[in-house]
Amino acid sequence: MFTIGIDLGGTNIVASVVNEKYEIISTDKTPTNSPRPADEVFDDIARVCFSAVEKAGLKMDDIASVGMGTPGTVNGDGVIEFANNLAFNNVPARLMLSQRLGVAADKVFLENDANCAALGEAYAGVGNGAKNFVAVTLGTGVGSGIIVDGKIVNGINFAGGECGHMVIVVDGEQCSCGRNGCWEAYASATALIRQTKKAMEEYPDSLLHQLAEKEGKVSGRTAFDAMRLGDIAGIKVVNKYIKYVACGIINIVNALQPEIICVGGGICNEGDTLMDPLRRFVQAERYSIHSKIQTEIVKAQLGNDAGVIGAAILGYVK
Amino acid sequence: MFTIGIDLGGTNIVASVVNEKYEIISTDKTPTNSPRPADEVFDDIARVCFSAVEKAGLKMDDIASVGMGTPGTVNGDGVIEFANNLAFNNVPARLMLSQRLGVAADKVFLENDANCAALGEAYAGVGNGAKNFVAVTLGTGVGSGIIVDGKIVNGINFAGGECGHMVIVVDGEQCSCGRNGCWEAYASATALIRQTKKAMEEYPDSLLHQLAEKEGKVSGRTAFDAMRLGDIAGIKVVNKYIKYVACGIINIVNALQPEIICVGGGICNEGDTLMDPLRRFVQAERYSIHSKIQTEIVKAQLGNDAGVIGAAILGYVK
Repeated sequence: MFTIGIDLGGTNIVASVVNEKYEIISTDKTPTNSPRPADEVFDDIARVCFSAVEKAGLKMDDIASVGMGTPGTVNGDGVIEFANNLAFNNVPARLMLSQRLGVAADKVFLENDANCAALGEAYAGVGNGAKNFVAVTLGTGVGSGIIVDGKIVNGINFAGGECGHMVIVVDGEQCSCGRNGCWEAYASATALIRQTKKAMEEYPDSLLHQLAEKEGKVSGRTAFDAMRLGDIAGIKVVNKYIKYVACGIINIVNALQPEIICVGGGICNEGDTLMDPLRRFVQAERYSIHSKIQTEIVKAQLGNDAGVIGAAILGYVK
Repeated sequence: MFTIGIDLGGTNIVASVVNEKYEIISTDKTPTNSPRPADEVFDDIARVCFSAVEKAGLKMDDIASVGMGTPGTVNGDGVIEFANNLAFNNVPARLMLSQRLGVAADKVFLENDANCAALGEAYAGVGNGAKNFVAVTLGTGVGSGIIVDGKIVNGINFAGGECGHMVIVVDGEQCSCGRNGCWEAYASATALIRQTKKAMEEYPDSLLHQLAEKEGKVSGRTAFDAMRLGDIAGIKVVNKYIKYVACGIINIVNALQPEIICVGGGICNEGDTLMDPLRRFVQAERYSIHSKIQTEIVKAQLGNDAGVIGAAILGYVK
């Protein structure tokens, strides 16, 4: 059995044919060139789908279902209600895909991209089929997807799973969402960069300055690199940042006690430098400290493929 | 069809016979007299169950299932692993109930009491059968129960649903759980009393002093009463308190977008004085501000009956 997974991103459109073991058989991609009219974008989506099917040596008739992950909010009718970075408003994505691909509308599934990535990791990545699973992505923002009993928690209005917008500091840092003190405003790569810049002001002799100059900018790596060189400011920034990341993770543990929380996004390239202290913080502070069984905190495995694989899995779980 | 619901509390044991409309037909209760050996407590539980069945004009053979809500953590084998205020450790509650009542063990269901209350409100109270529902109790602590797709979210170790122990202020007020800054440390009645006392120090001329003297203590009502009399300190305390309550509610909305969040506990006796501004805060700050469909924020309906009704419902949903 084969399905198609599509990852509609702000930069690229990726379509893959995926087999029943959730393995990618073939892939094609094209730039999104956003913003442009939805009709044009969907023509290109269809084109890469047909191309991926051809590369796999298959025909569209061999495809059991098609799933697409998209930024923004998708409602139960498969309409993208709002996607800021695609400039989409009420785009009938299910219908448009069904028509262009010649696949029945009830075999076309739409989902928010962070939720697709969570589904991909849960079923085909580190989750190893875990039924209760949360994926957190530490990137420009903090994305998340919640899976309970094998299903994505969409909530009443398909806007569920926004753990990045849980406040961890009342009246704290301004968040991009308009609220103050969201986890995203402390645990995203953007937040880490801001925290690093602030430390550079406080510590004019810190290695942070040399490292930033060498890289040509302050990035999410700068503080980690400084820390590895024993720089006090770097150590302070990283410790505090990991404490913030841990705070949100512990909140999720206390509320949902999932089998696994997987952490992905660019910051995860730091590997054990991030994950080891993160696990120590979580272990020390979780409410269920005396439970024999504990939520595992693991690094995401599928990288950029998580979204497209999760989209391909939608037909199995919806 | 009839089931028995039992609410094993630190103070009282309550058992009710409940019909298939989730209505209480008969009830009996007895003091818990905790701490004492589990065997004695369970003898009393059995006694009130038989008494409630008799009051209902039924026999134990007419009872389809028995459910019990208990403080602490209950595992999948029906063992109360740990219940601090009953001094219970690894008490095989399912087995003990089954033996004493002569009801098959697979017809005996155990659950944490906050989760039972959530189930009761969801199915028989304000939830009106909502499948995605969160109940929050603002009492000595902040309790909560999460229902997704009609089922209680227990998590991997049966310790799920502890939204009161989500941090909303990193490095904030000390919480009873050992962590700092938990929602409970800001939104419980205990926290409100602490906030009121602090305001009394800052405002020696406030009406708070007279009201507390009249009542003989500072309670969760003191600040609300002062506010209703136009007292500035009272207004400030209540506004800030409701903001803290709202913060945690919004966090839950953003993560789960349930159909309904119901708010119970002693503070809810303030009625619209609490609920109206609470709803305004939530409406203004939820991430899904543009969604047409929104989580309803409602006052709990069943009061102390929520737990016993929820326990009686366990047999239907487990």
